[in-house]
Amino acid sequence: MILDEVDRKILQLLSENGRMSYVDIGKELNLSRVSIRERVSQLIENGVIEKFTVVINSDKVGKGVSAFFEVDCEPASLVRVAETLANNPVVASCYQMTGPSTLHMHVLVEDFVRLENFINEELYSLEGITRVESHILLRRFKSRTGLKL
Amino acid sequence: MILDEVDRKILQLLSENGRMSYVDIGKELNLSRVSIRERVSQLIENGVIEKFTVVINSDKVGKGVSAFFEVDCEPASLVRVAETLANNPVVASCYQMTGPSTLHMHVLVEDFVRLENFINEELYSLEGITRVESHILLRRFKSRTGLKL
Amino acid sequence: MILDEVDRKILQLLSENGRMSYVDIGKELNLSRVSIRERVSQLIENGVIEKFTVVINSDKVGKGVSAFFEVDCEPASLVRVAETLANNPVVASCYQMTGPSTLHMHVLVEDFVRLENFINEELYSLEGITRVESHILLRRFKSRTGLKL
Amino acid sequence: MILDEVDRKILQLLSENGRMSYVDIGKELNLSRVSIRERVSQLIENGVIEKFTVVINSDKVGKGVSAFFEVDCEPASLVRVAETLANNPVVASCYQMTGPSTLHMHVLVEDFVRLENFINEELYSLEGITRVESHILLRRFKSRTGLKL
Amino acid sequence: MILDEVDRKILQLLSENGRMSYVDIGKELNLSRVSIRERVSQLIENGVIEKFTVVINSDKVGKGVSAFFEVDCEPASLVRVAETLANNPVVASCYQMTGPSTLHMHVLVEDFVRLENFINEELYSLEGITRVESHILLRRFKSRTGLKL
Amino acid sequence: MILDEVDRKILQLLSENGRMSYVDIGKELNLSRVSIRERVSQLIENGVIEKFTVVINSDKVGKGVSAFFEVDCEPASLVRVAETLANNPVVASCYQMTGPSTLHMHVLVEDFVRLENFINEELYSLEGITRVESHILLRRFKSRTGLKL
Amino acid sequence: MILDEVDRKILQLLSENGRMSYVDIGKELNLSRVSIRERVSQLIENGVIEKFTVVINSDKVGKGVSAFFEVDCEPASLVRVAETLANNPVVASCYQMTGPSTLHMHVLVEDFVRLENFINEELYSLEGITRVESHILLRRFKSRTGLKL
Amino acid sequence: MILDEVDRKILQLLSENGRMSYVDIGKELNLSRVSIRERVSQLIENGVIEKFTVVINSDKVGKGVSAFFEVDCEPASLVRVAETLANNPVVASCYQMTGPSTLHMHVLVEDFVRLENFINEELYSLEGITRVESHILLRRFKSRTGLKL
Repeated sequence: MILDEVDRKILQLLSENGRMSYVDIGKELNLSRVSIRERVSQLIENGVIEKFTVVINSDKVGKGVSAFFEVDCEPASLVRVAETLANNPVVASCYQMTGPSTLHMHVLVEDFVRLENFINEELYSLEGITRVESHILLRRFKSRTGLKL
Repeated sequence: MILDEVDRKILQLLSENGRMSYVDIGKELNLSRVSIRERVSQLIENGVIEKFTVVINSDKVGKGVSAFFEVDCEPASLVRVAETLANNPVVASCYQMTGPSTLHMHVLVEDFVRLENFINEELYSLEGITRVESHILLRRFKSRTGLKL
Repeated sequence: MILDEVDRKILQLLSENGRMSYVDIGKELNLSRVSIRERVSQLIENGVIEKFTVVINSDKVGKGVSAFFEVDCEPASLVRVAETLANNPVVASCYQMTGPSTLHMHVLVEDFVRLENFINEELYSLEGITRVESHILLRRFKSRTGLKL
Repeated sequence: MILDEVDRKILQLLSENGRMSYVDIGKELNLSRVSIRERVSQLIENGVIEKFTVVINSDKVGKGVSAFFEVDCEPASLVRVAETLANNPVVASCYQMTGPSTLHMHVLVEDFVRLENFINEELYSLEGITRVESHILLRRFKSRTGLKL
Repeated sequence: MILDEVDRKILQLLSENGRMSYVDIGKELNLSRVSIRERVSQLIENGVIEKFTVVINSDKVGKGVSAFFEVDCEPASLVRVAETLANNPVVASCYQMTGPSTLHMHVLVEDFVRLENFINEELYSLEGITRVESHILLRRFKSRTGLKL
Repeated sequence: MILDEVDRKILQLLSENGRMSYVDIGKELNLSRVSIRERVSQLIENGVIEKFTVVINSDKVGKGVSAFFEVDCEPASLVRVAETLANNPVVASCYQMTGPSTLHMHVLVEDFVRLENFINEELYSLEGITRVESHILLRRFKSRTGLKL
Repeated sequence: MILDEVDRKILQLLSENGRMSYVDIGKELNLSRVSIRERVSQLIENGVIEKFTVVINSDKVGKGVSAFFEVDCEPASLVRVAETLANNPVVASCYQMTGPSTLHMHVLVEDFVRLENFINEELYSLEGITRVESHILLRRFKSRTGLKL
Repeated sequence: MILDEVDRKILQLLSENGRMSYVDIGKELNLSRVSIRERVSQLIENGVIEKFTVVINSDKVGKGVSAFFEVDCEPASLVRVAETLANNPVVASCYQMTGPSTLHMHVLVEDFVRLENFINEELYSLEGITRVESHILLRRFKSRTGLKL
């Protein structure tokens, strides 16, 4: 699927305000409400738009600690471990990367007590994990949301 | 600000579908459209909801390569480097973490030619950078969006 | 529990001289011996003051070698290993940290013969330990005592 | 100076309770108050006892974040950097160790905002620092106080 | 076997153009076609020339991703693992080096989907592999072919 | 350019024997000498075949030591350093990779005396190089030539 | 045992020439042959002089490759592995150090074929070894012999 | 120079006892004193025997601390730094190796006070040194002397 300029503008507007009405989008782009709705439907159908969502401030909902993990696994256990971790609600994302470490994982928890509890009870107890490295977020310079990294 | 059970349910519904109408949310929670709208306004005003947005599939919009960087800086240059990188449109996020590396950065680009160009032209040319490590995303097991990591 | 200015001054005086009489503390703060005693009792009861103790010079009591260890464990064995090590009298402290290594431990021993003996006989023999890194203290620039790190 | 069995018992009692009266110590060891006082004076004079102090719970006095740093310096700047850091009140200890990193430092601060501020404003601004690694304490298995590590 | 100046010139000419006729080589070196043919036969017989081949541009034949791997093995499994990997057609080369990592391997595949598939299905499933590190080629500054590295 | 089955077979035959006559290739594939010559010309013109060459055994021509280098550069100097190294005749290949190190280089030299001389005289003297790591080839399990890695 | 100035001078002379006659040593130090012999006997008896030996140039006796190894062991196997390696004639020295690696070993062999054979046949086959890192000596700036390191 | 069996036996005997008389060596090998003397002269002249020396126990002469250093230098300063260090009497050996670190150095000193003094005053003050890693010898499993490593 190839996106034209109008598609890209619609994505940009929705990215900034996901609840913007099709009428308002149409006004910006000199198009009718109907043609905007059609294009958005097309973008959803083709998988360009995966979902409409909200950006929630994690501090404000009591998820004060943002931690990044490098999880080394026995190679043969990697996929199983990754799928188990992906099911844990505190895990925000979980990737396999090139480079030295087998899984890269973001975790959001209330506080350090919960973090230590997650590490010792839910992470270290998984079979096939050989080494874990964790780091805590200190400062956020940029955090683009809405794009699937 | 303390969130009650209703606030949390609203956030969860909007997280799954950011364009859900207040009428439909109200039906789910046995509340009126007006009271939902008031609560959402409150959540926005208090900074809990930062914005409504769309999750866009980066592959589908031609951002096929997702790379993670660890950027070591001369300590005195860190904040300046971070702010410069945060302004670069290919940079999706940029954090300062505890641990060995001074900046953790996510980059989304079209292809490897653009990646090499970004590295050699836009990253390595910044004064104060001493060492760069990059890794490429191989597989995505979980990628929660809408939460500010 | 919230400490006021007087509490903080009492803690500072006791930190400098743990045997200072309540009369002398009272003189410094323009308070009666009785009110000082009451506040100290309160600080102990609330767990602010954990104990009164002495700072002993480890060199002078024949503990000439101060070593720091990073102890990597099989994740599932970490808590058991940590508790075993914490019971060893040469272990001065034992922490779990974020970052690459699972246990951070301080050891105080008489000399290198005892250190090698501790490593080979008491540390390497523990099941679940996968890798050990040790470093020796060369010079002490600051060493604040009395605060629980 | 060589310590005899009585000296060691006195040190152990004072280590457990730094305000124990000489009368009570004497009762435990079947010695007079005067001879205990003389021995304690001797231990102070010889530098075995460095000071009497209190163990304060850092969480209870609002020092909730305990961080360990490895600070790499340009070799020629190490001593100057170490002495500057040792004067900073948030620095609890600062050592030079064998091994890969030039300075090992413990820091106690109120929260992550203060930590990030310390790192970016007070640490990274020091000339001669080339690389910093930080880790956060997750769990304390043992923390012996009163001994100079 | 000792090569003289004429042998070296023949090797250089064939290295630049492996299909150069013996007549043309002879003209360059002021020698007859027959003596060139004899020398080339000698070079083949003595194992100096291992084979005549073509340099194929891997991008143009759809091998767009060039990856380097460091494969750590249980020491006792190294030779078996290396021989298994050497039989995999995507593996272009596989060496044992001095230094920290036991096997150094070059892999050429169509794209990232195939790379991830190779890693998870064909590499991580091998018994005796303990850790894998992969890196992707970004830019080629020099790539001499025809010499056995 | 899209290769068909015949093109692939021609490449495979030339890869095994770069001097195979077009008549013999034609016999294998049931095609005329002329059509083979045309296809080969096309493959050359399109850049699929970069050149015809010989695989020379480096041991037999007195290049007994095969070394791999990781060369860290000041980011701003990387391209200049890479181009200088690429011009050095002992350098067989020089790549920029993802991962921790900026340049990956293969070197072929006569012996260790020449290697040390290359390192100290030709490599370490380049401005902009900050750290060099070298490893020596111990054993070759697979070494495919003719493909541009 | 305390060495006086004369003992130190004798050690220095023997260190430079281990076959120097006691008469010649005596002349240098204005002492009789007998008193020199007595002192040397005393130095041997007290273990100061461990043995008289020759410094042999390893290159000249066909030990052209000097390699250093860092051998990581399962902690519980360290002493057994070290003792096995110490019995191998190609092992020149084998130490346990502080720091990250469990055994530090020097090996002297004829050539790279023998080195690869030692690594794959004699080292990797030992049970309890988890990781091996090897480096080759490039240049000797100083090599004091006769002192037990 | 090619050594025969008799040369090797002479070297072995002198390696075990560097002061063994030529008469005694002759008896062992069924050769005359004169022919032994001639062969030894030949071994010295050809550089096989570099010198006769004594193995001195470093602990017994008050060199209680044996430390190994990895010294990273600015590449362009390596040779100068190495030559300066080689002239320092506490440096027992100093090598350039393949692998990650530019200089490998052994140091023998009286105690930790002297070690810290060497590091801070004599090592860190050298221009061109960028990073130093030190480790202390814990246990000696094998220490062959008389061979130039």
